[in-house]
Amino acid sequence: MNLDSFISGFTEGEGCFCVSLNLRSKLNTGIEVRPSFSISQNKRNLQLLKTIMERFNCGAIRFSRNDQNYKYEVRSIKDLVKIIIPFFETNTLLGVKENDFQNFKKVCEIVYQNLHLNKEKLRELIEIAYRLNGSGKRKYKQEELLKHIVS
Amino acid sequence: MNLDSFISGFTEGEGCFCVSLNLRSKLNTGIEVRPSFSISQNKRNLQLLKTIMERFNCGAIRFSRNDQNYKYEVRSIKDLVKIIIPFFETNTLLGVKENDFQNFKKVCEIVYQNLHLNKEKLRELIEIAYRLNGSGKRKYKQEELLKHIVS
Repeated sequence: MNLDSFISGFTEGEGCFCVSLNLRSKLNTGIEVRPSFSISQNKRNLQLLKTIMERFNCGAIRFSRNDQNYKYEVRSIKDLVKIIIPFFETNTLLGVKENDFQNFKKVCEIVYQNLHLNKEKLRELIEIAYRLNGSGKRKYKQEELLKHIVS
Repeated sequence: MNLDSFISGFTEGEGCFCVSLNLRSKLNTGIEVRPSFSISQNKRNLQLLKTIMERFNCGAIRFSRNDQNYKYEVRSIKDLVKIIIPFFETNTLLGVKENDFQNFKKVCEIVYQNLHLNKEKLRELIEIAYRLNGSGKRKYKQEELLKHIVS
């Protein structure tokens, strides 16, 4: 039994590589970029989330009143780049989530190098982010966000 | 990367150990017991289902019009007892699905030995089956089924 491969398989089903984009007029670019890796579970499976958090040794578990679930989440860009991304490079996702991971990785690398403060790179980032989690709902339309990039 | 551990992790999130119970007046006991192991996925993840089916070398993939998903399913009691159950004994489910698996295993052993044709054993089986997939919907209430055991 290999814990890392188990976590990779569990993530293929239940994990989320997410990039949230928000309008923030106070930021230089006008847009805030927040990548995160998360796994949500019913309370019954809280112990497994703790096992995963111990393995990664980063992130936190929060209770979400919205859906009455517990969510393990890594938001720190440093932890994402130094721990989470190398983990899934070694423990490859064997299904369609691998595409999400590859796009997520591109976004994290841009953010980690602060390249998203460059307008051209930010446009590229937004396009990649909209390919992620294709079926998920987005607060803003892609064109709307692109329009808001402060020029 | 360990494929078996990956499959176990994926099953923890997406797999289903299910026992369906149906009234069948033509059967001696009045009740049909059908255990199955399955994983449902969107078409986008069909290739992963094929990888899993190849690993197990049993079962079949079907398209379900109901939810527009593909379902990999093992129904043969022999394959369940000889392939699926030993697999998850070696590649332990690390979360709450392990409970489902343990109950599923008990049901499969009863069915494999044809002990469910015995009324007492069938009552025991029904009680175990109702502990499985606690949140899932059941066609019949437990008491209703127990009442139908032909005496």
